[in-house]
Amino acid sequence: MKANLPESAKRLIERLAELPSIGPRQATRLAFYLVAQGGDAIHGLARDLDELGRVKICERCFFVHQNPGRLCHICESPSRDPGVIMIVEKETDLLSLENTGKYTGRYCILGIIPKTGILEEWQKLRLQNLKRFIEKELGGQAKEVILAFNPTSAGDFNASLLMKELAPLAKTVSRLGRGLPTGGEIEFADDETLGSALERRS
Amino acid sequence: MKANLPESAKRLIERLAELPSIGPRQATRLAFYLVAQGGDAIHGLARDLDELGRVKICERCFFVHQNPGRLCHICESPSRDPGVIMIVEKETDLLSLENTGKYTGRYCILGIIPKTGILEEWQKLRLQNLKRFIEKELGGQAKEVILAFNPTSAGDFNASLLMKELAPLAKTVSRLGRGLPTGGEIEFADDETLGSALERRS
Repeated sequence: MKANLPESAKRLIERLAELPSIGPRQATRLAFYLVAQGGDAIHGLARDLDELGRVKICERCFFVHQNPGRLCHICESPSRDPGVIMIVEKETDLLSLENTGKYTGRYCILGIIPKTGILEEWQKLRLQNLKRFIEKELGGQAKEVILAFNPTSAGDFNASLLMKELAPLAKTVSRLGRGLPTGGEIEFADDETLGSALERRS
Repeated sequence: MKANLPESAKRLIERLAELPSIGPRQATRLAFYLVAQGGDAIHGLARDLDELGRVKICERCFFVHQNPGRLCHICESPSRDPGVIMIVEKETDLLSLENTGKYTGRYCILGIIPKTGILEEWQKLRLQNLKRFIEKELGGQAKEVILAFNPTSAGDFNASLLMKELAPLAKTVSRLGRGLPTGGEIEFADDETLGSALERRS
């Protein structure tokens, strides 16, 4: 298929096709779209990418930042409670939670939990890092650790494990509420959701 | 949502979200994926993009190329019949047709035909360019012009128009065959397709 393309286009299509949720067909279409936009637009995108390459990862919560120091703006902020830590899977989950404007603690990004439920080695290291932080900086006990994993079987499984594992390190270990989504309709809620909503009625 | 991100990440996400078939959510996920890959991977992608920015557009058929001259490798090839020209909508259509190994003529890329069926000004200029080529280089008449547009109403509409418009400029103006796709099942073919297959039985 790509035999007839210039080398540079082939190489870029291969790179783009390696990105998550972009297949070879979409990668090819993107490359042609970019060529049609012209050299200036392409070089502009390349410059923005190079800039992104200078983004750093917070050494405490693993969120992205461009601060001169080692910590992101959330971990550095004096108005955020260091004793309350929410463990999330993804950066985008953190952004959604920040968007609610209802959380004033800090975070720890664990990475997407594999479907098998078994954490990767680097994910275990992030949990070690969190425990070390609680021991050294919070005197061995956090006020609260909130487990904000996706409500999937892999997420629930790890949440159960961590509830026990972190119990000695926090006054409270909690999980996000389960029930009807706001704006949802009871008629269309699945059994699991409706069951949770019943159990956790308030 | 993006208020909490470094400037460079915000800018890249905005750029990515402008690309066709990539929404803001996928753009955000891609940016985080790239950051997780690390600076080297990101700078590599930026370098490949810069290379792509040097790709040229063939002055005759509008396909991409990196030759020193003005023409792509298909237009330059002495083994391709310059008197047979296939008008396609997209570069990817050209690649699919090349892949069949059954075509030895040349191409003219018209660009995606708008859903309204009305061609853009730059698309009309490409047709002008084709007519000029036939007049100057083929003595006023091509052997064959093949219209290879998508079998949609906009594609069919423009094919009908061009059949008449190009009739004086080619011995034959043809269109790609219509009928059952190979490997398809009659049971699941839509009425239009099955009707075409009946009409054009051979």
